Amino acid sequence: MTGLGPLRELGELGVIRILERKLGTSPRTAVGFGDDISAVKMGQRRVLVLKTDMLVGSTDVPPGMTMRQAAWKAVVANVSDMAAKGVKPVAGLVALGLPVDLTKGDVNGLADGLRDAAREYGFPLVGGDTNESKDLTISIALFGIAKSNQLVLRSGARVGDVVAVTGAFGSTTAALKALIEEKKRPNRLARPLFDAVYKPRAQLDLGLKLAASGALSSSIDSSDGLAWSLHELCKASRVGMRIGHVPISSAALKFCAEFDYDPTELALYGGEEYHLVVTVKPDRIKSAQRAASGKLLAIGTVTQGLSRVVLRQARRDLTIERKGWEHFKSSTR
Amino acid sequence: MTGLGPLRELGELGVIRILERKLGTSPRTAVGFGDDISAVKMGQRRVLVLKTDMLVGSTDVPPGMTMRQAAWKAVVANVSDMAAKGVKPVAGLVALGLPVDLTKGDVNGLADGLRDAAREYGFPLVGGDTNESKDLTISIALFGIAKSNQLVLRSGARVGDVVAVTGAFGSTTAALKALIEEKKRPNRLARPLFDAVYKPRAQLDLGLKLAASGALSSSIDSSDGLAWSLHELCKASRVGMRIGHVPISSAALKFCAEFDYDPTELALYGGEEYHLVVTVKPDRIKSAQRAASGKLLAIGTVTQGLSRVVLRQARRDLTIERKGWEHFKSSTR
Repeated sequence: MTGLGPLRELGELGVIRILERKLGTSPRTAVGFGDDISAVKMGQRRVLVLKTDMLVGSTDVPPGMTMRQAAWKAVVANVSDMAAKGVKPVAGLVALGLPVDLTKGDVNGLADGLRDAAREYGFPLVGGDTNESKDLTISIALFGIAKSNQLVLRSGARVGDVVAVTGAFGSTTAALKALIEEKKRPNRLARPLFDAVYKPRAQLDLGLKLAASGALSSSIDSSDGLAWSLHELCKASRVGMRIGHVPISSAALKFCAEFDYDPTELALYGGEEYHLVVTVKPDRIKSAQRAASGKLLAIGTVTQGLSRVVLRQARRDLTIERKGWEHFKSSTR
Repeated sequence: MTGLGPLRELGELGVIRILERKLGTSPRTAVGFGDDISAVKMGQRRVLVLKTDMLVGSTDVPPGMTMRQAAWKAVVANVSDMAAKGVKPVAGLVALGLPVDLTKGDVNGLADGLRDAAREYGFPLVGGDTNESKDLTISIALFGIAKSNQLVLRSGARVGDVVAVTGAFGSTTAALKALIEEKKRPNRLARPLFDAVYKPRAQLDLGLKLAASGALSSSIDSSDGLAWSLHELCKASRVGMRIGHVPISSAALKFCAEFDYDPTELALYGGEEYHLVVTVKPDRIKSAQRAASGKLLAIGTVTQGLSRVVLRQARRDLTIERKGWEHFKSSTR
């Protein structure tokens, strides 16, 4: 998208700050604004976990994405946040805003994508609402139940914990750059690159197992980019991080070599990649690895120094900036 | 809105039919598509009640409505559906799609409206999501808990039950016609008329008391118009209705006299009025009236004859048609 408006000046964070301030909190609120999910107390030991994330056509649907893929992605974005907290979705709702030029085939595709994703992650979509809108809108709300003391929040990281991720980064951003900046189409580049964009996956199984292991001290999903996610954990936990290694996908490396991008930059400052970014208690690394069947990559350690996030590379400390995929202000959209 | 598109051919009901068919149902579903709310089983006797309704700027925000009023309306539309089922909202989420030309003042107004409505109806909005969109979008999701056997569904009306409503109709439609078709502005017409549009109210207190009385056999809110609501109850309950009297607000009567509209037509085939339309067991009329502190108006009786809804007027039976405020196909927008 091009053009500026007052909303871009304010930014997504500005909007969220206003909402947080005005809406406040309540005695029933267990987790409010500022984490991947919200939660409300239900009796002594349980919380109702709530999540909503809206997909908007003009900003979240890249060129070439079908309606079925867009609907799938809308669900995945919500599931990924539940995964990061270790909560299994029990049921979901879908509110739709549909442009008048959509065909019956489009609506069928959209419903197929919703069904595919709900099946994949094992919960029913039990109701919804349909509207006409100028911009395709798929707003999902998910619900789950958790024991209050089992939710893995952003705020639990402690100095000395290990920072770890569930996958290699960069494919989504590389694919988006290929599509939007290099004007490439999927047949021109390797399939895995575009699968990251057109058929993203949430790490629900991994998230549930990691949370159940009790080894995590904090967790977030990487949908706003790796750098942003690291900073969010640091801000909520009032710590810093020293990252020794940024795992980059082979598809992203190949793209960067061909089109001359810096792969580390691309992997750090991307977005819409649904890995989990976690911190693990230092004495629980092995049980975390067992829970993740080896799919957990240690990338650094939690340090002192509020929100100081550095990448140690070639004997030098480079600052990892708090930037990424913020809506409204993003230059890549 | 003007212009046609394939989506208008399909209509809102067509979209819902596709979603229902594709998404199916699950063993956990207590109430799926086709009622005011959805519900999921939680243990033996309780259900988690879920509701989502999306407000879209281009179709749901009439001329002259402020951001604060739009946000209030978005919440009220959701609360009204919970009210119709007799369920108190426990908490809510809000997903926003915001046009880039919104100012900080607009966002503050929007947050004020959300806060006002959440306070009015006594629940916290505990989280949300913000996005950029071409069309203002306020998607609310609400959650409540109910005993499975206390939910007042659309499907419980029986022959001989009394049909009743919680208010007089027509103000909202009259005000919308005044604004859109007659190009009048609020200062030209009586305040109550425009309050119906700019500051609608959900009948939550009344809905909770009526449901608790145990006197209702079915219930729906009138947000799609009185005629539509009556037909929905009839379809779900497999009955007909004979209506003896359509209560019309004095503000609507005055508007109809001045601008030459048929008041009964206007009251029947309107929409966005948040009264409750219920059926009462014939031996429980008094306890229903007591519960409603006299605010329940009997308007007819439940009859045999699937979906035959008639208005008995001047010794003649007039058919009340199944039409109203359907999105996509509505000619008044």
